[in-house]
Amino acid sequence: MDMDTLRRVDMYWRAANYLSVGQIYLLDNPLLTEPLTPEHIKPRLLGHWGTTPGLNFCFAHLNRVINARDQEMIYIAGPGHGGPAAVAHAWLEGTYTERYPGVTRDAAGMRKLFRQFSFPGGIPSHVAPETPGSIHEGGELGYSLAHAYGAAFDNPDLVVACVIGDGEAETGPLAASWHSNKFTDPARDGVVLPILHLNGYKIANPTVLARIPEDELVKLLEGYGYRPHLVSGDEPAAMHELMAETLETVFDQIAAYKEGDGGRLPMIVLRSPKGWTGPAVVDGVPIEGTWRAHQVPLAGVRDDAGHREMLQEWMRSYRPEELFDELGRPVAEITVTVPEGERRMSASPHANGGVLLRPLALPDFRDYAVQVKSPAAESSEPTRVLGTWLRDVIAANPETFRLLGPDETASNRLSAVFETTDRAWDAEVLPTDEHLAAGGRVMEVLSEHLCQGWLEGYLLTGRHGLFNCYEAFIHIVDAMFNQHAKWLESSKKIGWRAPVASLNYLLSSHVWRQDHNGFSHQDPGFLDVVVNKKAEVVRVYLPPDANTLLSVGDHCLRSRDYVNVVVAGKQPVLDLFTMDEAIAHCTRGLGILEWAGTENLSRDETATGPDVVLACAGDVPTLETLAAAALLREHLPELRVRVVNVVDLMRLQQPSEHPHGMKDAEFDALFTPDRPVIFNFHGYPWLIHRLTYRRTNHAGLHVRGYKEEGTTTTPFDMAMLNDIDRYHLVIDVIDRVPGLAVRAAALRQRMVDTRLRARAHTREHGEDLPEVRDWTWPY
Amino acid sequence: MDMDTLRRVDMYWRAANYLSVGQIYLLDNPLLTEPLTPEHIKPRLLGHWGTTPGLNFCFAHLNRVINARDQEMIYIAGPGHGGPAAVAHAWLEGTYTERYPGVTRDAAGMRKLFRQFSFPGGIPSHVAPETPGSIHEGGELGYSLAHAYGAAFDNPDLVVACVIGDGEAETGPLAASWHSNKFTDPARDGVVLPILHLNGYKIANPTVLARIPEDELVKLLEGYGYRPHLVSGDEPAAMHELMAETLETVFDQIAAYKEGDGGRLPMIVLRSPKGWTGPAVVDGVPIEGTWRAHQVPLAGVRDDAGHREMLQEWMRSYRPEELFDELGRPVAEITVTVPEGERRMSASPHANGGVLLRPLALPDFRDYAVQVKSPAAESSEPTRVLGTWLRDVIAANPETFRLLGPDETASNRLSAVFETTDRAWDAEVLPTDEHLAAGGRVMEVLSEHLCQGWLEGYLLTGRHGLFNCYEAFIHIVDAMFNQHAKWLESSKKIGWRAPVASLNYLLSSHVWRQDHNGFSHQDPGFLDVVVNKKAEVVRVYLPPDANTLLSVGDHCLRSRDYVNVVVAGKQPVLDLFTMDEAIAHCTRGLGILEWAGTENLSRDETATGPDVVLACAGDVPTLETLAAAALLREHLPELRVRVVNVVDLMRLQQPSEHPHGMKDAEFDALFTPDRPVIFNFHGYPWLIHRLTYRRTNHAGLHVRGYKEEGTTTTPFDMAMLNDIDRYHLVIDVIDRVPGLAVRAAALRQRMVDTRLRARAHTREHGEDLPEVRDWTWPY
Repeated sequence: MDMDTLRRVDMYWRAANYLSVGQIYLLDNPLLTEPLTPEHIKPRLLGHWGTTPGLNFCFAHLNRVINARDQEMIYIAGPGHGGPAAVAHAWLEGTYTERYPGVTRDAAGMRKLFRQFSFPGGIPSHVAPETPGSIHEGGELGYSLAHAYGAAFDNPDLVVACVIGDGEAETGPLAASWHSNKFTDPARDGVVLPILHLNGYKIANPTVLARIPEDELVKLLEGYGYRPHLVSGDEPAAMHELMAETLETVFDQIAAYKEGDGGRLPMIVLRSPKGWTGPAVVDGVPIEGTWRAHQVPLAGVRDDAGHREMLQEWMRSYRPEELFDELGRPVAEITVTVPEGERRMSASPHANGGVLLRPLALPDFRDYAVQVKSPAAESSEPTRVLGTWLRDVIAANPETFRLLGPDETASNRLSAVFETTDRAWDAEVLPTDEHLAAGGRVMEVLSEHLCQGWLEGYLLTGRHGLFNCYEAFIHIVDAMFNQHAKWLESSKKIGWRAPVASLNYLLSSHVWRQDHNGFSHQDPGFLDVVVNKKAEVVRVYLPPDANTLLSVGDHCLRSRDYVNVVVAGKQPVLDLFTMDEAIAHCTRGLGILEWAGTENLSRDETATGPDVVLACAGDVPTLETLAAAALLREHLPELRVRVVNVVDLMRLQQPSEHPHGMKDAEFDALFTPDRPVIFNFHGYPWLIHRLTYRRTNHAGLHVRGYKEEGTTTTPFDMAMLNDIDRYHLVIDVIDRVPGLAVRAAALRQRMVDTRLRARAHTREHGEDLPEVRDWTWPY
Repeated sequence: MDMDTLRRVDMYWRAANYLSVGQIYLLDNPLLTEPLTPEHIKPRLLGHWGTTPGLNFCFAHLNRVINARDQEMIYIAGPGHGGPAAVAHAWLEGTYTERYPGVTRDAAGMRKLFRQFSFPGGIPSHVAPETPGSIHEGGELGYSLAHAYGAAFDNPDLVVACVIGDGEAETGPLAASWHSNKFTDPARDGVVLPILHLNGYKIANPTVLARIPEDELVKLLEGYGYRPHLVSGDEPAAMHELMAETLETVFDQIAAYKEGDGGRLPMIVLRSPKGWTGPAVVDGVPIEGTWRAHQVPLAGVRDDAGHREMLQEWMRSYRPEELFDELGRPVAEITVTVPEGERRMSASPHANGGVLLRPLALPDFRDYAVQVKSPAAESSEPTRVLGTWLRDVIAANPETFRLLGPDETASNRLSAVFETTDRAWDAEVLPTDEHLAAGGRVMEVLSEHLCQGWLEGYLLTGRHGLFNCYEAFIHIVDAMFNQHAKWLESSKKIGWRAPVASLNYLLSSHVWRQDHNGFSHQDPGFLDVVVNKKAEVVRVYLPPDANTLLSVGDHCLRSRDYVNVVVAGKQPVLDLFTMDEAIAHCTRGLGILEWAGTENLSRDETATGPDVVLACAGDVPTLETLAAAALLREHLPELRVRVVNVVDLMRLQQPSEHPHGMKDAEFDALFTPDRPVIFNFHGYPWLIHRLTYRRTNHAGLHVRGYKEEGTTTTPFDMAMLNDIDRYHLVIDVIDRVPGLAVRAAALRQRMVDTRLRARAHTREHGEDLPEVRDWTWPY
């Protein structure tokens, strides 16, 4: 390796280290042009030094490779706590100033850069949406490698360098992510280069992978299907040489892999001290190379002159006078090491994926509609119908759309997609296998974490996708959803971040049709997690039939910067809307099903408005509501019943709470200001109260939903266990509409008896009453 | 191996397979004494055959080892879908009849056993709490190995056999769990025997581990630190011999390990066909050995005579006439293979841990109290105080209590525990390390999944523990919490399941004091997930100071069958209660802070009740509420203010909704029926509305809480960003108490100005206003 090149790499590294320390400590005096005084030091020292020099080391060396090979590359910093590193690089590369012109690449800008870090009104302490070049926050650890693979899919020329902290490597999602290499296609996909950074410690403990015998570590990584290359040491010059040589080998191997040599992909194990090049010992206690270097190695700098002196020595050890000119600009020997334009990892358009985003070519969803001659007369399986449209979405967008799921795509009845594509699979294939191919557009792995992480990486680099999942088990990624939603919430405030495609969930095999799998599979609570996030980024849809699902699906794939949650069943449900009606209904988000109600049938012409509103959201609750409406029409024909179906749950909120929110006057017009409303809801009933507690008629609102009752039983028994069944809804109406208690006492008793009969029938025959199973709208 | 023994093992295996198939298909005719007719077949075929024969094979062979070595063992079936297997064993072992006397071990009982499986009013299709011998449901996959290790901790004589499905092995939590072997102590802990069952397929796909080259698989498992033994094949006789020999080797290695040979623990890779011994081909399509064997291999049995004939052949292939006598009882050659009494894995007390549970020896928490001379005058760090008590809890219960956390025990300021114990660690130790030892009682791994899984296994086998975690990242185990809560909900209905110790969460480093780590670390939404589960099993506590935390901690460690969530800060907060007051306050769950209010100071003797109620829950919201009360007392001394603090959140609900719920009359007495209530809440504000929407004064309730605003800033700035700060509370009071708008206009403006000044000060100096930082109760 050319020594002059390595000298410049070292200069770049020292500059990045200097800038990192400065961000953690300094308010002023960025070039140490005068002795450090307490006023130069931040009052609160917030930042993570420990991982930073290793992150800087990798970045510096990767830049050399980018220049030498004109390689397209992005950088994912798993140890997101190393925020100072990512910011330092963006500044050295000039990207920071391009994004934030106030932070110039000179002494004045360096002062701002230092001051703003982890400072009120400034920037976060972690790699974050505010950080140029980042698609990965890393505040919550475990997702770097999955994000890296997501970024690499369908980017055949890209290398995604992914530094994985050895703390992060203990997490489940990261441990699962190594096997992502079984789902990549050398021809169509880019290459992920994992760099496992063993600095030995997490917050206060050694890490597992740093403390197992090296032969076990190598076996583990080989077992994951990689060719590990070890780079170990703490002497900078030797380490530079070793790292540079290793990267040459690694990128030669990557080139051979891309040319189809069929070999395993390389990876690097970088073993370097935590807090490398920082203070070795402070107050008699070892710091460098121990967990004590995790955050701020010198804690008393503002008040303790000795510590302050050590800080000064530490920063001067990087010889800033060689790195920056008198005006604080990086010297030419550093700037020449910076790649050009979009080759800079801090400026890669892949790390601001919205700028690469192209709208999907979407086949007209109307062409996939089921024909509806009269409402609720025939049935379709909504997800099966959606699958035919998704099949053609995939066909029309062979490089920018992926369908993900934890081995549930067929179970969720989206199998039509396999008419046009396969499951991505790059491991062994047997003759009995079906629909497996390296280039498949459907990604199935039994890990919701991987599905979510891959999709996030794919979306943030400017592509599109849909994650289909059993409803109950989407809770597995609650935390990942939270972090992605927070990323979107923050991104929206950042002018230079272009909008990305929404993260779309299709939750099927939902709570009401997990009767066969039992209690562990019954949980509709993801919606409660979702609505905690900011209204600007979350949308929840509960289409009640096939045509409304098509309309919602099309809407979601066109949207940007949201998380869309769609809950829809795979079992047959009644077709309620023609396509035109479905579009109108979904556009309004909710509406009256005129044909199902009786308020206009009344012979009492003086009456205004309904006696009772039956509201519903979700396919099974809607079916039960319609059946209840039919019972009421039959047995209490004088009762004026209104049926309201809600597709877009966010419509229920005030406009002040959500952009989709309805005005109170609209809400009152639909739900009345004062009549009883029986709301039959797909999820936990409290969510409806939470969304509507400010509404005029909140006191009149009675919500049925899943109340955590269930087992292995029949679908209708599930409904009865939770009192969302048609007979109980009729009872609710009788109990709540003034005057009915006496008038309809016989009907009420009949409903009670019918429920008992249904229960007994189920327990005896193992299936629901025929009249329940085959029910259609009788009018 | 003695051929006669293996013949009996095979008979047992065939019997278990026969009983498994019977459960999936038959309503009647259990012994096939007459030709199968449609009436003998269940109308809905619900069950999972694919994994079952493998589970049965392992169980049969492990029974042989138990007998041969008098080994104490339990069995965890990772493929929880194999419910029929676990039920079959319990019945063959006689345990099923002991637990459910109606299901006798004869033909009549067999008929019931078959009929009830996956049948309404019967038992779930998965291994579940209803299943004798189980501590692991497996409905949601990924946790078997963590549960197994949790069960093994502090059970030195126990072997926990853990069958891991190759689907499950793709999940993150399972992938992380392999490294649990770095946290075990050969002397103090039992041994986990992982049996990785490669049957090749998940629902509709091949599995990763079944399709990587065998040398990679072996390296992977060796890299995880195990000695893998491969058992591959499909010919039963050869497989019996191979498995028996392998188990001899394995248990010899386990014995050597227990004697301290320092070697790696053995494990087994069982490669056998999915749906082994089931139909090979149905309707021309291969079934056995493919994913199509996952659920029900013959789907049309009721209507299709050909399928029915195949089912009959299949069941007869096990030669039931050799296995059961004319009365349907297992023959002696089978029953002699069943271990005695509690040696039966289906009857092990470890798998019904409540029967082994002993109360903790708890040091008197009152002895750890901070002294409080006057309220809100001095500060303590609540978790640091709790740490001193936990230290002594650990010391007093050296074999039955563990403290778990994802490397945050010190960060959460529980470090006093290290005065008495260490962190469990069985990998390399360096001279600079502190508090690492194989026998440590503190378990720290950077995986919330592992902490949760280990603790669940530990609790379900009759021990105690506490999981401390950053509040935001506890969402990582939302799904695991859900499943454990469901386990408890179901267990409570099962008479023979003895109550187990509660699962206790201590959430610290909470949303209001993650100002330094930024937005990704700010999320109080776990509470919203928790309250969705049944009221009988969930408890939420928000102690506002050190003494209330001690009182709550003691209460939680004494409780049974709950999930207790305690949110408490690690930063200094004002001491509010003497120990006696704290106990009284926690016992009531909420109460008026008389000293902080002004309703009794009023000179207007005709006034009744307060003009406004300031309610609060959580330490930071309580501090801000007190500061607001002080401001009101100073500036509006005539205003009658009541301050109510809530520790036990469930008190806010109706008694019909939660056993801790307050009656409406009590609620009205505290919160008034009609005065404005400003409720300052720790979490998302909607939760308070959800809990109180039925209360008389709900319309008067105005809730402040976290509304998803945050970044890296100061603590008080965090409060201001979300309007929970003292100044905004005063503004809220002025805006809501009739008549104040005009009278207190100047004060209102002053509050607005003070907020702006506080904001500006923070942005300039990087810290909060001194009067905010050092505030104490001034009266």
